[in-house]
Amino acid sequence: MSTPFPLPQPMARALDLARRAAQAGEVPIGAVVTRDGVIIGEGENRNRRDSDPTAHAEVVAIRAASVALGDYRLTGCDLWVTLEPCAMCAGAISHARIARLYVGAADPKGGAVEHGARVFTHPQCHHRPELYSGIGESESSSLLRTFFAERR
Amino acid sequence: MSTPFPLPQPMARALDLARRAAQAGEVPIGAVVTRDGVIIGEGENRNRRDSDPTAHAEVVAIRAASVALGDYRLTGCDLWVTLEPCAMCAGAISHARIARLYVGAADPKGGAVEHGARVFTHPQCHHRPELYSGIGESESSSLLRTFFAERR
Repeated sequence: MSTPFPLPQPMARALDLARRAAQAGEVPIGAVVTRDGVIIGEGENRNRRDSDPTAHAEVVAIRAASVALGDYRLTGCDLWVTLEPCAMCAGAISHARIARLYVGAADPKGGAVEHGARVFTHPQCHHRPELYSGIGESESSSLLRTFFAERR
Repeated sequence: MSTPFPLPQPMARALDLARRAAQAGEVPIGAVVTRDGVIIGEGENRNRRDSDPTAHAEVVAIRAASVALGDYRLTGCDLWVTLEPCAMCAGAISHARIARLYVGAADPKGGAVEHGARVFTHPQCHHRPELYSGIGESESSSLLRTFFAERR
């Protein structure tokens, strides 16, 4: 079930962060922000631990990268996330001016990039990243399946 | 140009927060979260000050309320915001399980509740607040108009 070629290092790191979230009882999703290939911010789901409904992996990673750069725009930076972003996270990605978005598994039930609200497709969205999907898809899906199966 | 009846106190407070944002050079938008009519979290746009693309008024107010309650769900709480939420903030409102959403001015250019992505209308959105629009609309619009006119 593993990808037949080595995963890009940022997505491998995002998957490690997703595993760490699962160990803490949080939905296993991880994200990293890179600039010129170097990780400058990372995060995993922290909703329960932080009592914060906005603490999705993408938002945590974007906030960390923004503080690191001292800029609320991450122009030219890329975001790698193990699951298709929801509407909140897609909006955050747009506000941050992320250049390229690399996504692991699709999320037909909660995603808002290629499903549902399709946040990047409306004129009210003022910045759209380039989108690359399916990177580390099987690893990401497997983590989520195991997590939810254990809780049923 | 003022509303011909007294504004509800939470929206009056949200407008005060919007004015404070403008004084700090941030886009004048304010928000408060109430529970049983009592303000339990509040916020204003802080993107520039915090180097945080996610620091919209709604997100700041939701984070404050969630930490205050020690819960990542604000079930039964209401959110008052001076401008129609964007996709990011609409998503955050849904994740937080906000019961009622009170909005000041509409935002045809960036809104995602009654415009654009219409985040609450898709099956991928798992919680929809009751929506009340146009509360403090003229005050909110006036603040935004003045802010942007001074910067042109």
